[in-house]
Amino acid sequence: MAPRKQQEIFDATLRLVAERGYDGLTVEGVAERSGVNKTTIYRWWPSKAALLGAALVEADVLGFEPPDTGSLRGDLVALVEAMAGLLTRPPARDIALAALGAAVRHPELDGRRFFADRFARERAVFERAVRRGELGGAADPMLIVDLLAGAVWVRAVFRGQPVTGGFAEEAVSAVLDGVTASHAGR
Amino acid sequence: MAPRKQQEIFDATLRLVAERGYDGLTVEGVAERSGVNKTTIYRWWPSKAALLGAALVEADVLGFEPPDTGSLRGDLVALVEAMAGLLTRPPARDIALAALGAAVRHPELDGRRFFADRFARERAVFERAVRRGELGGAADPMLIVDLLAGAVWVRAVFRGQPVTGGFAEEAVSAVLDGVTASHAGR
Repeated sequence: MAPRKQQEIFDATLRLVAERGYDGLTVEGVAERSGVNKTTIYRWWPSKAALLGAALVEADVLGFEPPDTGSLRGDLVALVEAMAGLLTRPPARDIALAALGAAVRHPELDGRRFFADRFARERAVFERAVRRGELGGAADPMLIVDLLAGAVWVRAVFRGQPVTGGFAEEAVSAVLDGVTASHAGR
Repeated sequence: MAPRKQQEIFDATLRLVAERGYDGLTVEGVAERSGVNKTTIYRWWPSKAALLGAALVEADVLGFEPPDTGSLRGDLVALVEAMAGLLTRPPARDIALAALGAAVRHPELDGRRFFADRFARERAVFERAVRRGELGGAADPMLIVDLLAGAVWVRAVFRGQPVTGGFAEEAVSAVLDGVTASHAGR
């Protein structure tokens, strides 16, 4: 299938799940919205779960390029800002919340693949930081990512509070420098 | 209403949302399961959203007492372990995922009240730490909580990976000491 056609299918899938929820998502609906024959879609993705799982990982609308600002701190701030944008700006916000919510409730969607794929791309940030001597080789990149991504999720999604105005810098500083180290002397 | 009766209603509410999802939750179902008249339930909580929102904050099954181990590090490790238990051990896990998922999709549930209530209780941990001189007065307790709670959420719920075997200690150490400070020398 042509990549452009595939993106149209993913786009229709994500927009439908955002509009109607996972229960309202159907391959028929995706066929109608994308103008691609239902049988063709089923040939590539055997179920709506497989289709949504693939869309999460591969759709351009949730696309992600790891930052390369020249410093670990700059890269992590850019990462947090990208996550904050994804979870607060429509239409990405509605798509991400609907798709991730469905992934939590429906293991057959294999939402873990989305996080594994993101982490594989984020690794570059940490490899460069180790090469530059900003991070020891024993540091745990997944822990760093999970602390930062998790803080954005809790603050923006669960608390419904802003993740702008210094939030990214403060979160990154807490994880890089420690809250006791950076605050105790004030 | 007697506190015990109220807890039976909350318990029925949370178990029903875990079994049937928010769409399958009805005040009628809660009345049947708890043996309390539907009209009585409506008199206290005007909608299923109000009922579930109250159950989230007040139900004993999601109950939470802030730890007091004598040190900030010990308290935070205990907090992370409590959150990890909540998000991995049935039945609390299924209840928490269903109720928090519903709160994200249905703002009328006012899920923010749950997080505000938890944070109000967690504050004691940080007030004691400041008094003991373990934390500067400028440190941001909500940021610390959101980093740690968020990491548990991402690791356990999104990645479906274990949050045992040193996870709590490592996450707390990252936030208290910083990943550059604690790892760079290794």
